[in-house]
Amino acid sequence: MKKIMVLHGPNLNLLGFRKPHIYGKETLQDINGEILEKSSKLKVRVEIFQFNSEGQLIEQIHKAHNMYDGIIINPAAFTHYSYAIRDAIEAIEIPTIEVHLSNIYNRECFRAKSVISPVCLGQISGLGKEGYILALEKLASL
Amino acid sequence: MKKIMVLHGPNLNLLGFRKPHIYGKETLQDINGEILEKSSKLKVRVEIFQFNSEGQLIEQIHKAHNMYDGIIINPAAFTHYSYAIRDAIEAIEIPTIEVHLSNIYNRECFRAKSVISPVCLGQISGLGKEGYILALEKLASL
Amino acid sequence: MKKIMVLHGPNLNLLGFRKPHIYGKETLQDINGEILEKSSKLKVRVEIFQFNSEGQLIEQIHKAHNMYDGIIINPAAFTHYSYAIRDAIEAIEIPTIEVHLSNIYNRECFRAKSVISPVCLGQISGLGKEGYILALEKLASL
Amino acid sequence: MKKIMVLHGPNLNLLGFRKPHIYGKETLQDINGEILEKSSKLKVRVEIFQFNSEGQLIEQIHKAHNMYDGIIINPAAFTHYSYAIRDAIEAIEIPTIEVHLSNIYNRECFRAKSVISPVCLGQISGLGKEGYILALEKLASL
Amino acid sequence: MKKIMVLHGPNLNLLGFRKPHIYGKETLQDINGEILEKSSKLKVRVEIFQFNSEGQLIEQIHKAHNMYDGIIINPAAFTHYSYAIRDAIEAIEIPTIEVHLSNIYNRECFRAKSVISPVCLGQISGLGKEGYILALEKLASL
Amino acid sequence: MKKIMVLHGPNLNLLGFRKPHIYGKETLQDINGEILEKSSKLKVRVEIFQFNSEGQLIEQIHKAHNMYDGIIINPAAFTHYSYAIRDAIEAIEIPTIEVHLSNIYNRECFRAKSVISPVCLGQISGLGKEGYILALEKLASL
Amino acid sequence: MKKIMVLHGPNLNLLGFRKPHIYGKETLQDINGEILEKSSKLKVRVEIFQFNSEGQLIEQIHKAHNMYDGIIINPAAFTHYSYAIRDAIEAIEIPTIEVHLSNIYNRECFRAKSVISPVCLGQISGLGKEGYILALEKLASL
Amino acid sequence: MKKIMVLHGPNLNLLGFRKPHIYGKETLQDINGEILEKSSKLKVRVEIFQFNSEGQLIEQIHKAHNMYDGIIINPAAFTHYSYAIRDAIEAIEIPTIEVHLSNIYNRECFRAKSVISPVCLGQISGLGKEGYILALEKLASL
Amino acid sequence: MKKIMVLHGPNLNLLGFRKPHIYGKETLQDINGEILEKSSKLKVRVEIFQFNSEGQLIEQIHKAHNMYDGIIINPAAFTHYSYAIRDAIEAIEIPTIEVHLSNIYNRECFRAKSVISPVCLGQISGLGKEGYILALEKLASL
Amino acid sequence: MKKIMVLHGPNLNLLGFRKPHIYGKETLQDINGEILEKSSKLKVRVEIFQFNSEGQLIEQIHKAHNMYDGIIINPAAFTHYSYAIRDAIEAIEIPTIEVHLSNIYNRECFRAKSVISPVCLGQISGLGKEGYILALEKLASL
Amino acid sequence: MKKIMVLHGPNLNLLGFRKPHIYGKETLQDINGEILEKSSKLKVRVEIFQFNSEGQLIEQIHKAHNMYDGIIINPAAFTHYSYAIRDAIEAIEIPTIEVHLSNIYNRECFRAKSVISPVCLGQISGLGKEGYILALEKLASL
Amino acid sequence: MKKIMVLHGPNLNLLGFRKPHIYGKETLQDINGEILEKSSKLKVRVEIFQFNSEGQLIEQIHKAHNMYDGIIINPAAFTHYSYAIRDAIEAIEIPTIEVHLSNIYNRECFRAKSVISPVCLGQISGLGKEGYILALEKLASL
Repeated sequence: MKKIMVLHGPNLNLLGFRKPHIYGKETLQDINGEILEKSSKLKVRVEIFQFNSEGQLIEQIHKAHNMYDGIIINPAAFTHYSYAIRDAIEAIEIPTIEVHLSNIYNRECFRAKSVISPVCLGQISGLGKEGYILALEKLASL
Repeated sequence: MKKIMVLHGPNLNLLGFRKPHIYGKETLQDINGEILEKSSKLKVRVEIFQFNSEGQLIEQIHKAHNMYDGIIINPAAFTHYSYAIRDAIEAIEIPTIEVHLSNIYNRECFRAKSVISPVCLGQISGLGKEGYILALEKLASL
Repeated sequence: MKKIMVLHGPNLNLLGFRKPHIYGKETLQDINGEILEKSSKLKVRVEIFQFNSEGQLIEQIHKAHNMYDGIIINPAAFTHYSYAIRDAIEAIEIPTIEVHLSNIYNRECFRAKSVISPVCLGQISGLGKEGYILALEKLASL
Repeated sequence: MKKIMVLHGPNLNLLGFRKPHIYGKETLQDINGEILEKSSKLKVRVEIFQFNSEGQLIEQIHKAHNMYDGIIINPAAFTHYSYAIRDAIEAIEIPTIEVHLSNIYNRECFRAKSVISPVCLGQISGLGKEGYILALEKLASL
Repeated sequence: MKKIMVLHGPNLNLLGFRKPHIYGKETLQDINGEILEKSSKLKVRVEIFQFNSEGQLIEQIHKAHNMYDGIIINPAAFTHYSYAIRDAIEAIEIPTIEVHLSNIYNRECFRAKSVISPVCLGQISGLGKEGYILALEKLASL
Repeated sequence: MKKIMVLHGPNLNLLGFRKPHIYGKETLQDINGEILEKSSKLKVRVEIFQFNSEGQLIEQIHKAHNMYDGIIINPAAFTHYSYAIRDAIEAIEIPTIEVHLSNIYNRECFRAKSVISPVCLGQISGLGKEGYILALEKLASL
Repeated sequence: MKKIMVLHGPNLNLLGFRKPHIYGKETLQDINGEILEKSSKLKVRVEIFQFNSEGQLIEQIHKAHNMYDGIIINPAAFTHYSYAIRDAIEAIEIPTIEVHLSNIYNRECFRAKSVISPVCLGQISGLGKEGYILALEKLASL
Repeated sequence: MKKIMVLHGPNLNLLGFRKPHIYGKETLQDINGEILEKSSKLKVRVEIFQFNSEGQLIEQIHKAHNMYDGIIINPAAFTHYSYAIRDAIEAIEIPTIEVHLSNIYNRECFRAKSVISPVCLGQISGLGKEGYILALEKLASL
Repeated sequence: MKKIMVLHGPNLNLLGFRKPHIYGKETLQDINGEILEKSSKLKVRVEIFQFNSEGQLIEQIHKAHNMYDGIIINPAAFTHYSYAIRDAIEAIEIPTIEVHLSNIYNRECFRAKSVISPVCLGQISGLGKEGYILALEKLASL
Repeated sequence: MKKIMVLHGPNLNLLGFRKPHIYGKETLQDINGEILEKSSKLKVRVEIFQFNSEGQLIEQIHKAHNMYDGIIINPAAFTHYSYAIRDAIEAIEIPTIEVHLSNIYNRECFRAKSVISPVCLGQISGLGKEGYILALEKLASL
Repeated sequence: MKKIMVLHGPNLNLLGFRKPHIYGKETLQDINGEILEKSSKLKVRVEIFQFNSEGQLIEQIHKAHNMYDGIIINPAAFTHYSYAIRDAIEAIEIPTIEVHLSNIYNRECFRAKSVISPVCLGQISGLGKEGYILALEKLASL
Repeated sequence: MKKIMVLHGPNLNLLGFRKPHIYGKETLQDINGEILEKSSKLKVRVEIFQFNSEGQLIEQIHKAHNMYDGIIINPAAFTHYSYAIRDAIEAIEIPTIEVHLSNIYNRECFRAKSVISPVCLGQISGLGKEGYILALEKLASL
């Protein structure tokens, strides 16, 4: 059975409270619920983490080595500057999909640039919580 | 029954022949076949077009007004400079998802910039032909 | 009797439907009507075209050679990147005025740059449909 | 009866002497004469000022508040850096048209950038003295 | 017998009329005549096309696949922005030489940048109609 | 008894009228009243000036030499380009605090750059009229 | 009674030791003492934290939600790149003032850019420890 | 007898007081004395002005037309942004030499750019008060 | 006896596994072994740490104050953006050498820029594990 | 009989040894042999030089004045920065063609910029040794 | 008796032949004659050199150490990139004046930037051969 | 026995005289002495050269082919622009280490960019003369 790690980056624990017109009203719990529901349909095992600290994200990515078959990461604000997370993803060589709830290309300028995407398999942006679901389907199908 | 338009941009008719290490070996016919198969599962009606000309793409987008419930577009090279296609998408106000077969963020610099994405609902990049399938699922679920 | 060609660029056929808070509620037909009405007052002959394709615009500009005394062009999105239209205008050496319905200098950044204006006689921006009328007056008075 | 203020910026008092191949041979008096003539046809009242000092231009713009229905301004060299004039125009909230005698887009690079235009109704560039006349027509028709 | 396709881009049909101090006084017919004359000397078969539309150029390039041994292209203004033509040339993997009549490096800034050249075998610029002749010799000698 | 000069830059005389959602509804008179009230509490002498002209601001700053112990300046739009005011402040070597009513870092791009701040003691931005009061406290405490 | 959180960013625990010609000789304890003294005068409750880790700062900011009426933050070096702290501040929607001991606008180039300030109420820079005191007064007065 | 106008720009009236390690200890009076002394040796008539206002400088330059044979201008901080002074110098077509007391190329970045120099005969920078003397010699020798 | 701290930044714990063609096949343990061996030859005491978190690196650097005579730091990906680590190194004023295993100047663009190096004694890049050994020699010889 | 000078720039004496996958396996001697062979067919006299020093190249270019009817130069790395060679070519006013063996537009970024080409008749890039032959034909035909 | 070295850079030996509308018709010999004539009036000893090679210029500058009291250098094209000449001038610490015959600020963009001027006493540009004479006067007067 | 070439670039012959606070008080002779002393300990043969001319450096690098096992180069100012030296190093394919006495990353901006380092094995910067010694150790150990 495939094993997928889902990583939520900084401030995503506030989901549902923060800027609902951009990120939707659902909480992270709601989204995680749907991810898990989908995972059972797809017969893959999913583990989900949320960290506000770059160091914890890096160490969790390291743990993926030999333990997970794929990673879904929403690096949130770290998307735009964390070369350390980029290096971690590149190092472990596990297929990784970058997900953004909102369309990062029609907001502030700085959000249009991802330092993470060049080392990911691909990126899904602007499709809301379905972004995670679709990423899961893709990783399950590999 | 929902109606979705799929638009393939310039040079995509060469798919399967051109740079298979980047775009895969399947032809556009193969991909279209899978899109149609999925659409029948999702009970949506899909129509698929490929154009090498910006003007034809624009006019096809115009036709979407009042006729389609969503658009999936792979603008190919027009991604990077066709403000005219951007204006067309913005004008018709139909949910549009931009799809790229390859990860446009780890290739030549100029490919990392999309002038289309700010007016789309979202973007899927680097997930191969599944990009179209996942976009279809999202549009079907709206 | 003077002969003036009016060229409307891509997506302008959607006028009246698209973003009325920016471009006004009038359709292209309404505007064309006012242009023709003005032309008969000014005793000039006006012919009006709208194209969504760069190639058609270029070929229509070529036809102006020896047939028209002036051109009024609203290149719409081509304003920002069509060096081919620029070259066409420069080549035929007929006085050309660039018209924009909206003020292109207070919208998205990319709209503030025209690659067409350096080869035109002048530019009118932000004065709505009167932009065409005023351009017509100027060309009639040359 | 409508009241329009025409503001000529720095060095325009030299008109007719300075670089006639760019600005034409007419003096500012000639141009003002034609503006006034047109204004009587249009049945609007026009008052015309020329200042070489940014501070005087700002104070004259302030006076427009509650006294004029529109402003025509040729900011000349201030076009390219006077954020203070920009703020003045923005503050008084009276429809303002920016006029340039020459086509500012085919001269030195620095002239292609206007810091004023984003707060104006629109801009007319390169149509010579008719620029003022056409701006007057537009303001009269509002 | 080798088969070479010669592609002339937008506005080149005006050659001989447009800016003769830059492009020379000969018409495209004259140049084509010399190309054909040279081709018979070199014992290669040459077919020549001119298009003002990007889409037509792309489709003509597609046809080169399995039909021509080399392409000579003067992309004219498309040189500076048509990533779609670039992708077409890259896709068909036929040796292609980019030719410019004038020296694109001592004219307007925007002409000094070619988005096409990175996928061509090479570029000849500024040598007038001989540019085509020399490119033909090179392709004939491959 | 300490003596502080307060300098208001261009267009600030319109305060209360202009863009109240950004600058508040109070007039410059209201603000000056509060500054004077605070100054009497702090036992410092305050003199207040407003100029729309760069030259007058420069000359008023020159007068501060040997006459004032500190300057509070809101350079308004001159913030972004008046190197001449910068030089004046640098020359007189009197502690100067730059005050902005609104947060200049979340408005138009050009407002995020101050050419004045490198020669000031410090800057207070976005705290409304209290900016002046707080600057006064600081200067009084030196 | 109002409750204000004061957050000191990385390296500020070294205050008094590090570069005293820029940051002054007082230690963070000294400064905290003065902040607390002022808070009792102003009758607000203040809690003070210092963290060298971005993750801890983010989590402390999250705790402010529903618990504090204002935040004073000196993000130190995080000022220049921590979009994650920016997002945290933006998310909790509590009035926040950014304070810098030194004038960040007359030091190294990279210090002149704050990614935090666009989401703060305002910024105080270069006024030494009084920056905190003045920010406290402002928050107390809201 | 030749007639030369010497124009000192903003803040130069503070000379001798301001930053003597950069500009020297002599006052403007001292420098003017030496200029006049030199002019009598060279048998040219010199008139000297100092203005802190851009508008006054422009109007003084206008007066040079038909009245002076040459201008020596130290535009001080206006060097870096006053396109209005540039236009005034260009308009009057009198040989003008730009003088800077200090070497503007080894100070702050912004001082290394002169918007005035392209319309001057030449520039002398960094040679102290002798800059004026040498400029006078050159203008006298024309 | 001198005391040197060696700091390995994020992801270096993966050494030997990650991209061996760039970083070599040796593990961090191997490298640490060689560093310790060298240190005993040089008669200096070395302590070695690896952290994936910026905050931990900063706090370890703070501890160097009064406890170590030199620091060798390989900041890995933090090299390119951690101004907080830079400030920490600058604050403690202990000679610090920046080491990179690979040549950071012939890889991705973003790696060519170090925000750390301006506050270090020097930098060794591209010499593999010997970089640490050579840095140790240098610090031992101070 | 026409006389042409061929100039090879720095490091070209290593040809055949250096990076044969880019520059081919032939030595400079081989290439020179082919150039001379062609020259005898074309009945022009050719003299060939190779220098690694900019100064020697400049002085050889100076000698061309009145002695040669054309120059073929491969400036190699000097292409990208030697304004001194540019000035030499511009000064002697002899038709000069710039030749590059490899396609300088698909290699490192810095190679895509030639400071020499604006003063040459034209440029041939990427056609290998035939570049010289074709340039010779062109110069012979002038 | 003071001793001054005059250094002419690359291509200046062509003076009088090259672009006389920019540099004048006089040869370098003419200019040198006037420099020597002036030097005898000023009672300083002058030695003059011209080199086309950067290395020779550097070595001649080195010889100035302890042998000359001042240097006048026209670095010609080296002005724009020779950091090696810059370092040489900075190293010997002899007052150096940079002279340009033409106004380098109204020609091609690249000429407006001098890498030499920051280490010179000052710069004279655009005053023709008098530039050398005036520089000589200044150095004589030190 | 290994053979190493040490190359000192322009102006390094002035070492000990020039800017001793940056480069130290030792002369090049002193440094060469220490290099030779170290080489005899390491049992490698070292030859040392210093050139002020780019051409001589290039030719000396060419000689390294088949004669030396490694190169240590301090390109001094050529570091920042000599693509010709870069090409020479790249061509001979001998391990090369770039050494800088001072830390080039905390001086003038232009010094932070090396065009040489991408083709070197590595770089040592800021470690004074030990830079050469450490480079020697590294090359000896290969």
